[in-house]
Amino acid sequence: MVQAIRIAIDAMGGDNGPATVLAGADIALVRRPELRYQLFGEERAVVPLLESYPRVKAASTFTHCDVTVQMDDKPSQALRKGRWKSSMWRALDAVKKGEADVALSAGNTGALMAMSKFCLRTMAGIERPALAAIWPTLRGESVVLDVGATINADAQQLIDFAMMGGAMARALLDIEKPTVGLLNIGVEEMKGLEEVRVAGQLLREADLKHLKYMGFVEGDDIGKGTVDVVVTEAFAGNIALKTAEGTARQISTHLRDAMSRTLMGKIGYLFAKGAFQQLRQKLDPRASNGAVLLGLNGVVIKSHGGTDGVGFANAIEVGYSMAKNDFLSKINQDLSDYHRAGFARGVAAIVDEGVM
Amino acid sequence: MVQAIRIAIDAMGGDNGPATVLAGADIALVRRPELRYQLFGEERAVVPLLESYPRVKAASTFTHCDVTVQMDDKPSQALRKGRWKSSMWRALDAVKKGEADVALSAGNTGALMAMSKFCLRTMAGIERPALAAIWPTLRGESVVLDVGATINADAQQLIDFAMMGGAMARALLDIEKPTVGLLNIGVEEMKGLEEVRVAGQLLREADLKHLKYMGFVEGDDIGKGTVDVVVTEAFAGNIALKTAEGTARQISTHLRDAMSRTLMGKIGYLFAKGAFQQLRQKLDPRASNGAVLLGLNGVVIKSHGGTDGVGFANAIEVGYSMAKNDFLSKINQDLSDYHRAGFARGVAAIVDEGVM
Repeated sequence: MVQAIRIAIDAMGGDNGPATVLAGADIALVRRPELRYQLFGEERAVVPLLESYPRVKAASTFTHCDVTVQMDDKPSQALRKGRWKSSMWRALDAVKKGEADVALSAGNTGALMAMSKFCLRTMAGIERPALAAIWPTLRGESVVLDVGATINADAQQLIDFAMMGGAMARALLDIEKPTVGLLNIGVEEMKGLEEVRVAGQLLREADLKHLKYMGFVEGDDIGKGTVDVVVTEAFAGNIALKTAEGTARQISTHLRDAMSRTLMGKIGYLFAKGAFQQLRQKLDPRASNGAVLLGLNGVVIKSHGGTDGVGFANAIEVGYSMAKNDFLSKINQDLSDYHRAGFARGVAAIVDEGVM
Repeated sequence: MVQAIRIAIDAMGGDNGPATVLAGADIALVRRPELRYQLFGEERAVVPLLESYPRVKAASTFTHCDVTVQMDDKPSQALRKGRWKSSMWRALDAVKKGEADVALSAGNTGALMAMSKFCLRTMAGIERPALAAIWPTLRGESVVLDVGATINADAQQLIDFAMMGGAMARALLDIEKPTVGLLNIGVEEMKGLEEVRVAGQLLREADLKHLKYMGFVEGDDIGKGTVDVVVTEAFAGNIALKTAEGTARQISTHLRDAMSRTLMGKIGYLFAKGAFQQLRQKLDPRASNGAVLLGLNGVVIKSHGGTDGVGFANAIEVGYSMAKNDFLSKINQDLSDYHRAGFARGVAAIVDEGVM
């Protein structure tokens, strides 16, 4: 018998709430019949809709929650009103209690991060969580983290991110020993931030069993797929992610304008429709929907709030793979390798030695 | 009589040295006959080539320099061996002496920044220089700074960048009162870095005559052209710039692959050739070549080292416009407006008040 993968879902999250969530749950279930859902939300909003998705209904339990975290609630506000009883909290709590393998929400990112930390706590040996994105590249996909959780990460935190990102690449991209790069800037004089340099030296020395440290990478290496895991602190990481999204949209707009401006362009478009279709798939942000909040005692997936059923199904698939491939034991393995290697107090030592 | 615009050029800089420089100088001269060049470089490398460009020869003086800064010299190395006598230094020195309006090099970025600071010094009231890029957007072009000079800029430095970027937009993009945004991240909980918040509050309160502060922008706003000037510290700025370049290359590759994979795609390409040509122009990195090193007593332009004549001509054009539209007096005007408004000690006050 195939083991069930249990996903606890905040059915109220996202711009369209349950409509998108249930459509996505249905799509995912066709691909992965062993999925089991625990849906949390407002009864009146979810239950009637559930009737339209008999497959989802048969694979789910539903729990009514009085409180819904709003997209514009501040994290502190969301915690105050939504702790213990909101649909977002209850999904996280199901993971905490061991009743679900993964928690998933398309709701308010700040609230989800705050609640996740509060409910699930960070793993032993990890100081701060990181938000990891799956980034489509010329070679396939890479993991990029942190794209929004811990700004001003120090060297030790960057090393933690490297291990978490490595374990995620092993679980999700099925790479045995992922390559890891630290995002840095190439301007000679600067040589980047001190934290990045210290983290780099330690990762090189640690020579970990499950990841291959490749040195510094620059912004344009992300899209090239130079490494499987790109590590950075959240300010630069979030800006890189949003800038890439903006650039992709900009080029798509230019392309559409160019093709529709002349008759020849329109005719060419008709002939090359299949090619454009293929390009559209490559650029489809839904295909890489589902960021993972790493470093907690449990797997938490954040879906984009504005996605549709196809995108939400993708976020479920991310959660499915993380659970199926046992991300949590992989990251624990990496952490204990690292600590066994005696690098736990490495950062202070490096700085003291004045090597940098 | 039209006044000459005098550009001092490091003829040895860039991957192809004088060949690219002279080709670019020739192209620029056709468009702007009032350009006058002061070329610095090795006699044997430059003078024979100059014979192929009679137009450039007629508009130029040439000065032999024994030393050439190499692309892989460390800034300190470049300073040691190249101070006073390298072609890069002599171009900067011509600006310092008032013999040229602009210095231009396609050479080693770190060396150029170090030498520029050493030779020209920062302007009164400006602590650190910034490297500003011209970024093509859906609305036209924006100025993005800092993309490589000052990492970990504090609030006061970010404010300086806003004024320098504003003055550059006025000189280069011909916008009377440019809109300015501070690059930040949207994740609610984080609310960005403290320096960014303090800078934002001060810019709002200062209510400057020559720029309109619009608040925070995110990475995807750059490509949209939401504001004319995007201000950030150099680590995030450099990563944003390189990430956008990488994304553009990635999409171009996908597009080329898609169009060439099938016969229909190839036929469509033939029909839509004009449209693709138009797109290629929009994405041509040569069109936005020429970053400006701001905050010094003189205008310094950095051309991409790998560009060709067309790209180098664009960098000359940037220098031309900065000089022609009197960037230096514009930035001085902005600085004195700001200081007159009594905001010189504003950062400390804001932090002390505990407003943040």
